[in-house]
Amino acid sequence: MRRVYVSSSGFQNLKTTSEKFGVCKQEMLQKRNAVLVDGVILNGPIMDSKAGEKFVEEACKIIMEDVVQKADDVTEKVCEWQAPEMLKQILDLEMRDTGECHQKILQLCRDVIKYSVKTNHPRFFNQLYAGIDYYSLVARFITEALNPSVYTYEVSPVFLLVEEAVIKKMIEFIGWEEGDGIFNPGGSVSNMYAMNLARYKFCPEIKEKGLSSLPRLVLFASEECHYSMKKAASFLGIGTENVYFIKTDERGKMIPEELEKQVQRTRKEGSAPFLVCATAGTTVLGAFDPLDKIADICEKHGLWLHVDASWGGSALISRKHRRLLHGIHRSNSVAWNPHKMLLAGIQCCALLVKDNSGLLKKCYSAEAAYLFQQDKFYDVSYDTGDKSIQCSRRPDAFKFWLMWKALGTTGLEERVNRALALARYLVEEIKKREGFQLLLEPEYANICFWYIPPSLRKMEDGPEFWQKLHQVAPIIKERMMKKGSMMLGYQPHRGKVNFFRQVVISPQVSREDMDFLLDEIELLAKDL
Amino acid sequence: MRRVYVSSSGFQNLKTTSEKFGVCKQEMLQKRNAVLVDGVILNGPIMDSKAGEKFVEEACKIIMEDVVQKADDVTEKVCEWQAPEMLKQILDLEMRDTGECHQKILQLCRDVIKYSVKTNHPRFFNQLYAGIDYYSLVARFITEALNPSVYTYEVSPVFLLVEEAVIKKMIEFIGWEEGDGIFNPGGSVSNMYAMNLARYKFCPEIKEKGLSSLPRLVLFASEECHYSMKKAASFLGIGTENVYFIKTDERGKMIPEELEKQVQRTRKEGSAPFLVCATAGTTVLGAFDPLDKIADICEKHGLWLHVDASWGGSALISRKHRRLLHGIHRSNSVAWNPHKMLLAGIQCCALLVKDNSGLLKKCYSAEAAYLFQQDKFYDVSYDTGDKSIQCSRRPDAFKFWLMWKALGTTGLEERVNRALALARYLVEEIKKREGFQLLLEPEYANICFWYIPPSLRKMEDGPEFWQKLHQVAPIIKERMMKKGSMMLGYQPHRGKVNFFRQVVISPQVSREDMDFLLDEIELLAKDL
Repeated sequence: MRRVYVSSSGFQNLKTTSEKFGVCKQEMLQKRNAVLVDGVILNGPIMDSKAGEKFVEEACKIIMEDVVQKADDVTEKVCEWQAPEMLKQILDLEMRDTGECHQKILQLCRDVIKYSVKTNHPRFFNQLYAGIDYYSLVARFITEALNPSVYTYEVSPVFLLVEEAVIKKMIEFIGWEEGDGIFNPGGSVSNMYAMNLARYKFCPEIKEKGLSSLPRLVLFASEECHYSMKKAASFLGIGTENVYFIKTDERGKMIPEELEKQVQRTRKEGSAPFLVCATAGTTVLGAFDPLDKIADICEKHGLWLHVDASWGGSALISRKHRRLLHGIHRSNSVAWNPHKMLLAGIQCCALLVKDNSGLLKKCYSAEAAYLFQQDKFYDVSYDTGDKSIQCSRRPDAFKFWLMWKALGTTGLEERVNRALALARYLVEEIKKREGFQLLLEPEYANICFWYIPPSLRKMEDGPEFWQKLHQVAPIIKERMMKKGSMMLGYQPHRGKVNFFRQVVISPQVSREDMDFLLDEIELLAKDL
Repeated sequence: MRRVYVSSSGFQNLKTTSEKFGVCKQEMLQKRNAVLVDGVILNGPIMDSKAGEKFVEEACKIIMEDVVQKADDVTEKVCEWQAPEMLKQILDLEMRDTGECHQKILQLCRDVIKYSVKTNHPRFFNQLYAGIDYYSLVARFITEALNPSVYTYEVSPVFLLVEEAVIKKMIEFIGWEEGDGIFNPGGSVSNMYAMNLARYKFCPEIKEKGLSSLPRLVLFASEECHYSMKKAASFLGIGTENVYFIKTDERGKMIPEELEKQVQRTRKEGSAPFLVCATAGTTVLGAFDPLDKIADICEKHGLWLHVDASWGGSALISRKHRRLLHGIHRSNSVAWNPHKMLLAGIQCCALLVKDNSGLLKKCYSAEAAYLFQQDKFYDVSYDTGDKSIQCSRRPDAFKFWLMWKALGTTGLEERVNRALALARYLVEEIKKREGFQLLLEPEYANICFWYIPPSLRKMEDGPEFWQKLHQVAPIIKERMMKKGSMMLGYQPHRGKVNFFRQVVISPQVSREDMDFLLDEIELLAKDL
C-alpha cells in the first residue's frame, strides 16, 4: 500500500520545492488531524514519490543511452575537452535558493555526461582503471538504491556476509590458510591500514601512548613504490624521511641486497625498522618486486611484510601470470584493488591480513557502545565495523562478488590473460614501428615508450635531443584530448624525460585499438 | 558506430564465460587478420555489450520495482530478518570457477534486495541517515556509470568544478569569507584530516620528521564526541591517551570552564596542546557544544578549533536552526556530512578549512609526477587530487550538488525544519504517554527515551529497577526486527541503562510515523 501525498496541484510547471512536492497548506489544514508545529505541517510525507520515481526513470533512460550504450562505441569521443573557465560557463554551477524543474535537471545530467571523460571508452588508457563491467555496474546501482552502511549485521546483513565471503576467497588466491581483511576507499588507504597494523604489532601501546618518546620508526619501500607510502608515513606521524627508499634494478624491481644493507644501516642508527612495503605492479613501470627474497629478509629481521598489490594483485587470478607474485603467501598483509585490472568499479579495494587472531580489530577498535552493543540478540561477531577507521562504510565487496558470481573465476582469469596478451602484442608492434622506442620490456600491462617524431629522428643523442623529446608527449597529449580520440598518460620518471605509459585493461579493448593507438600518435605528431 | 562482436551463438543458454561473451575461437581464426598471442585471440572485444546492456536494463527494472517504488510504502517490511547462519544458506555466497547465467544473477539481485535492510523506509530510524532523495540517487547512478576518479582536471573536469562550487557554497553557510575543502569517505576521515592539518600547522616538520622525539601532543574533545576522535588519535600516532575528554553538562554540551582547566593542566604537564575538537550534534544525544565560548579559549591559547558537525552541520541551512552552531565561523575546520540530515547518499562528507593559503595542499601533497605533471596544457591548479590522502577518489560532491540544484536552498531548509518540527512533536507525545520517559529535552533530531513496560511501572526506583529496565530495549528491538515493522537504535550511555535513540530525518516521514513508533513500542512490549 502506497501512501497518498497531499497534492492536487500539477507538478511540472511549479517552481518552489514545497509546491513541487505538493504540500498545499490550505488543503492540509482543512483535513482532520492536521498537526502544525513551528509553522510546519507534519501530516503526510512532503515528497511526491510518484514524481520522484518518474524522474529517476527518465534519468535512467539518459544514463543508458548516453553512457552505457555508448561505452563500446569507438566513434564516440573519449572526452569533449573544455578549458576550466569555459566549462564553468557552460555548466550552470551555481546553487540557488529556488530549485530547478525536472526538465532542467535532466538537461544538466546530459551536460554532466557530455563533458565528463568516458573512462569506459575502449580508448581510455590514461589510468590504472578503464572499461565497463555490466555486473559490477548493476551491483553499484543496487548499492546506491539501498544506501547501506557496512558496520553492523543488523543494518547490513547481506553485505557483511558478502564481504566475508569475498575476503575469504581473495585470501585463498594469496595462498594463506586463514586471514582477515577489510574493504576500504582505495589502495592508499589500504597501505595506511597496513602501516598502522605493522606498527601496532611492533608496539601495541602506540595505540594509547602515541609515538612521542619512542625511537624513530623506519619502514622500507622501493624507489618505484606508490606515492601513498609517503602520504601514509606523514599521516601516521612516522614522517616521510623515515621511509627508506630501496634502490631498484633497471626494470624497477627492488634489489634485495640493497634492502638488507638499509635494514642493517637502520639498526646501526639506533632507529627501529618495523616494516617492508614491497610492490607487486608499480604504478609507472608495472614492476614486481622479488617477494620471495624480500620475505627472506623480513623473516631474518622480524619485519612485517606488506605487499602493495593494488595494481598487480589481480594477476593472482591467472594461473599463467600469478608467478609474477611468487612468494606473496609469505607476506603479512596485501593491498589488492579489483577495481583496476578486474573492472569492479571505483572503489573496490581490500586490505588483506594474514593474522587471524583479531589483530585488525584489536588495532582499530574503539568499541562505540551506541553502535556495537554487546547485548544484541544475534552473534555480534558479525558486527565487523570496529575493524575499520571509518564509521559509515560502503559495501564495495558486493560489486566484486556479483561480478565474480556472473563471470566465474575463469571469466576473471580470461580478462587478465587477455590484457597481458594485448600488452605483448603492443610491445611487438612498438618494436616494429619507426619512431617508437620502448623504455623497457614490460612484465605486466604498463607499456612505457617514447615517440620520437620525424624531426628528431636524425638528431644526435645528447642533452638537446632529450630536452626536445621531453616536450613531445605533452603536445601529443594536448592534441589527442582536444580531438577526443583517446587518452593516454605520460610522465617524466627518475631521470627519464616524458614518455607515454599505455595501460591495457578493458575486455572491450582489442588488437584494433592497439593499432589505432600507434597510428593515432603518428598522425597527431606528424608535423613535430 | 558500434562494434560488431564475434559471436554467432545464442546467449541465454550458454554457461562458460567465453561462450557467454561470444568468443568462438574456430570462427575467429578463420577470419582474416586474426591475431593470437599466448593462445589468446586479440581481435575484437570479448564482451557482448548488447547482452550486457540488456542485463543492465532488466536489473534496473528490478531495482525500480523492489527498491525505489517501495521506498515510501509503510506496509512493506523494513527488514526481513534472518540470522547469519541461515542467511548464508539462503544466499549462494560461494564464488566458483564457472559463472552463472543472467537469470540466476537477476534472482540473486532480488534476494540481495529482499534480505537487505530498507534504509529508505519511512520507519527506518536506526542511524543518522535515512530516506531517499531521487536527485541524489540519479547523480549516484550517473557516477557509477561514468566511473570517474577525482584527482586531475583532465580525467574529471566536471566533477572537480562541481566540488569546487559545492565547497564554496558550504563555506558560505559556515560564514567564512574564504576557505578550502575536500570531500572524503566519512566524518571519521574528515576528523582525521582536521587533526593532521592542525598538527601540521602546529609543527610543519612533522610531515617529514614524524612525531618521535617531539613533546607529547594533546588534543581536547568532549566526553560526548564521536568515537572517531579516538580512532584518529590512534591512527595518527598521537595516542588515545592524549585525547583529553572534557566534561559535559547534563545536556551533553562541553563545559568551557572545564576545557580551560584542562588546557592549563596540559601546559603544566609540559605537553603540547594543539587542537580542540568541538561537536555540533553529538551522535547519541544530539548536543551542540557552545562554539563561541570554546572559540574564545582556542584564541586565547592559540589552539586550532575543529568542529565535528558531521551530524549537526546541516542545521546551517536553516535560518531558524542555524543558531545551534552559533560561533562556527570562528573555527579553523569543519566536518559536515550532507549524507545524513540532507539525504545526499552514503557517503557525502566534506572537510572544510578556513585557511586559504594552500595549507591542505602543503600538508598532504606528495607531488606524484605520473599524475600531477606540471607541463600540462591547462591550468594545473585545477588538479586538486594532491590535497587528498587518497589517490582515486569518488565525486561525492556531485550528488549533493544535483540535489541542491533541484531543491534549492529553500528545499534543503524545509527538510531540516520539518525534521526538527517532527522531533518536537514526538517529544510532546512522549511526555503525554504513560510508560515513556525522556532522557532529556533534545535540541536536535535525536530523541532519547526509555520505555517502561507495564510490569515495571509500579516498581520502586533502585538498582533492580534500572537493571530490569536495561533489558527492555534489547527485547523490544529483537521483536521489531523479527516483525520487520521498524528499526530504532538503543544503547547504554555514560551510566544510563539502555534507552532508545530515535532519529528523525526523512522527508518521507510524517506525524503518522511518529505515532506509529510509539504505538508499536507499546504493542511489542505489552507483555513485558
